[in-house]
Amino acid sequence: MKKRIYLDHAATTPIRSEVLETMKPYFDRDFGNPSGLYTEARDAKLILDNTRKKAVRLIGARKPSEIVFVGGGTESCNLAIKGIARANKNFGKHIILSKIEHYAVLCPTRYLREKEDFKTTYIRPDREGIVQSEDIKKLITDETILVSIMYANNEIGTINPISDISKVIRKIKTQRLKTGNTTPLYFHTDACQAAGYLDINVEHLGVDLMTLNGSKIYGPKGVGILYIKEGTKIQSIVQGGGQEKDIRSGTENIPSIVGFIKALSLVQSEKNKETQRLTILRNYFTKELLKLPKTCLNGHAKKRLPNNVNISILDIEGESMLLYLDEKGVAISTGSACHAHNLESSHVLRGIGRSHDVAHGSLRFTMGRSTTRVHVDYVLKALPGIIKKLRVMSPVKLSEKECEKND
Amino acid sequence: MKKRIYLDHAATTPIRSEVLETMKPYFDRDFGNPSGLYTEARDAKLILDNTRKKAVRLIGARKPSEIVFVGGGTESCNLAIKGIARANKNFGKHIILSKIEHYAVLCPTRYLREKEDFKTTYIRPDREGIVQSEDIKKLITDETILVSIMYANNEIGTINPISDISKVIRKIKTQRLKTGNTTPLYFHTDACQAAGYLDINVEHLGVDLMTLNGSKIYGPKGVGILYIKEGTKIQSIVQGGGQEKDIRSGTENIPSIVGFIKALSLVQSEKNKETQRLTILRNYFTKELLKLPKTCLNGHAKKRLPNNVNISILDIEGESMLLYLDEKGVAISTGSACHAHNLESSHVLRGIGRSHDVAHGSLRFTMGRSTTRVHVDYVLKALPGIIKKLRVMSPVKLSEKECEKND
Repeated sequence: MKKRIYLDHAATTPIRSEVLETMKPYFDRDFGNPSGLYTEARDAKLILDNTRKKAVRLIGARKPSEIVFVGGGTESCNLAIKGIARANKNFGKHIILSKIEHYAVLCPTRYLREKEDFKTTYIRPDREGIVQSEDIKKLITDETILVSIMYANNEIGTINPISDISKVIRKIKTQRLKTGNTTPLYFHTDACQAAGYLDINVEHLGVDLMTLNGSKIYGPKGVGILYIKEGTKIQSIVQGGGQEKDIRSGTENIPSIVGFIKALSLVQSEKNKETQRLTILRNYFTKELLKLPKTCLNGHAKKRLPNNVNISILDIEGESMLLYLDEKGVAISTGSACHAHNLESSHVLRGIGRSHDVAHGSLRFTMGRSTTRVHVDYVLKALPGIIKKLRVMSPVKLSEKECEKND
Repeated sequence: MKKRIYLDHAATTPIRSEVLETMKPYFDRDFGNPSGLYTEARDAKLILDNTRKKAVRLIGARKPSEIVFVGGGTESCNLAIKGIARANKNFGKHIILSKIEHYAVLCPTRYLREKEDFKTTYIRPDREGIVQSEDIKKLITDETILVSIMYANNEIGTINPISDISKVIRKIKTQRLKTGNTTPLYFHTDACQAAGYLDINVEHLGVDLMTLNGSKIYGPKGVGILYIKEGTKIQSIVQGGGQEKDIRSGTENIPSIVGFIKALSLVQSEKNKETQRLTILRNYFTKELLKLPKTCLNGHAKKRLPNNVNISILDIEGESMLLYLDEKGVAISTGSACHAHNLESSHVLRGIGRSHDVAHGSLRFTMGRSTTRVHVDYVLKALPGIIKKLRVMSPVKLSEKECEKND
C-alpha cells in the first residue's frame, strides 16, 4: 500500500512510542487500584499522586487538588459547564460563550438552557475568528456566573486572547466584590487544541477552569484533565466511589493518566521548536494554496495554531475534494454541509460570517509531528487537478468577492 | 522482591497479554477518528462497527444500536440511572434499588433524590445478600419508572436472581398496559462483577439496561458498555459531538473498546471452566477459614461468584489483618470502617444485617486467573498466627453468636 499523508491531526493523533512505553508497566504489572490499602494499591496511589504533581507543574497550577482527571475532553467540558452552572445557580443563571466553541461546550450549554432554565449568550467572534474581550465586557450581567471561550479553535486554528479576556473578567469580579455582589464569575477555557503548541500556564492565562485531553497531543484517547482553581464551587456530573475528591468518580485509569501526562510534558517541552518549524510550513502552504484561483483563508492569518490551514475553494464541495485527495493518499477534513453534525455547514465558518457556499468549499489541513515539506508539496501538486476537474462539473459559479462578504 | 499473591480481583485486574496485543495496532497505526470521511477514519468506523457487533453477540442483544460504549462502569451506571430518570420523569419519579448496590448506583440515585426531587426505595436483601423478587413486586408503585439491582455483589459476591426479578417486572408492565397506564418501567442491572463468570445474555436476564466494564475482566480501565434495549427512552449525561447515537459524546476510544470486547469474549468463553476451577478452590478456602474460631461467612454459601470469599473474623479489625497479610505478600480487601468510603463500615455488610463489629472484622478475598491452591494454602497458613497476635491485643470480646444476629 502507498504511504499515506495524514493531515487531520486536529481530529486525533497517534500515540507516540515514548508515551506508550511509559504506559506499559501499568497495564499488567503495576495495575493496582489506588483505593486499596495493600502494597500494589499504595504504589498505584503514589503513581497517581506523582503524575498529578507533574500535571500541576506543567500547567502552573498551585495544588494537586486543582487537577481532576476525567475521561476525555468532552466529559471535561461538560463537567466545567454543568458543574459550575448547577453549583452556582442560586447566584445567577447566565452563561456566555462564543459561537464557535466545540460541540463539547455548545451542547451541554444548550442542554442547560433547554432543560434547566439557564440563559445563554453567544458572542460572535470577529471575521477572523477572534473573540474580543471588550465584547465580553458588554455582555456580562449581574446574573452571569460563567464565561467559556476556547483557547484555540479546532476548525480554523484561531487563537483567542485568553489572558486579555481573563483580565476583563477579573475587573468585573473586583467590581462585584466592591458593590457587595456575591455572585461568582468563573472563566473556563477549552484548551484541547492549544495544548500542543501554546502556553497553558493557568496563572498566565488567568482562567478558573481549563480543559485538556490526550487524544490531540499524541497521548491516549479517553483521558483528560479539568483544571479547577482552588475555591471554585463545582458539582460532579458522575457520582460513585468518590475518586478525584468526589468530583469525578470511577476507578482511576492509571495507564492512560500516566501516558497523557507524558504526552503533555513532551509537546509542551517541544512546543517552541515545533511551532517554529510548523509556522514556516503553514505559511508556505497557505501562500501557495491562496495562489489557486477563487480561494480564501478561513481564520486569522497569524493568530492561529502553527499546524492549521483552513481554506475555502469556491464553487466546489469540500467533501468531493476530500474524497479525491483521499484517493491520492491524503487524509484531511472539511466543514462542508455533507459532513457536518447537523446537515448544516460548519458552525465555526458560519460563526465567522462565511456564507453557506464558502463554508461548503472548505478544507482543513492540520499538520503534525510527521508532516514535512514533502507532504505539503505533494498536496499542492495534487490539488489543482482535482479542483479543475470538480469545477468543470460544478453548477455553482460564485463571485470571487464571496470571500469578503460577511453574513 | 518476594512474589506477591494478589487476591483483590474484584477491585481490578491486570490486562491480559492477548487483550493488550489486540489493542496495539489501534494505538499508533490504525488510530483514525471514526468521525472523518477518509480511509483511516472509515477503517476506524469499520473496526468500531465490527467490535459493536461482537458485543451484540456476546450479550445476546438484538441490534448494534443497543450497545453504547462509555468510559467505565461508574459512568455507565450514572447514565442508566439519571438517563432513565430524566427522560421519563413526566411519567413518574420513583426508583427502586437494593441497599447493597455499588456506589456507582447508590450515589447518582441519591443525587436525583436530593437535587431533582425523585423518590427512592431501598430494598433490603435477605441475610445472605439476595434480593427477593417478591419484595420488589410489593414496592413497585404506579410512579415507579426504574428498578436497579446488581447482578453480583462486589463485596460478598452474592448473585441476584435477575431473571426472576425481570419476570416480576414484566408482569407489572403488562398489567400497566392493560389498565391503560403508560408509565414505562425499566430494569437496569450492574453486571460489572458478574461478567467474568455468569451468563450475561440480556434476553435470558430480561433486562432493559445492563452495565459492563473492562477493568474487572482483565480488560483495559476507563471503558464500559451500557446496553440499552431498543425503544428505551433515555437522556444523555454528557453532550457534545453526538457519538454513540448522541447518547455518549466524545471521541470513541477504539483501542480500549477493542481490548474490552476481546477481554469480554475471553472471560465469557472460559467462564464455565474457570467457574468450575474456582468454585472448588473457593469452597475449600471457605471451609478451612471457617474452621478458625469465631469466624463467619458473609453472603450466600453457594449463590455467589466462584472467586469470592468474604469472611468476618470476630474481635479484630479487618484493616490490621489486611496490613499483616500485606507484609506477608498477600493483597486483599476489607469492609472495615477504617477503610470504607464514609467512615462507616461496609454498607453491604450492614445491608445484610451484620453488626458494625462483625463488619469491622471482615476480609474479602477475590481470586482470579492466576490464583492456585498454593496461594490459598499460603494464606491459610499465614492467617492463624496473625489472628492470634491481634486477638491478644484486642479489647473486644464478642460472643460467637454475634454472627447470627440480624441488625
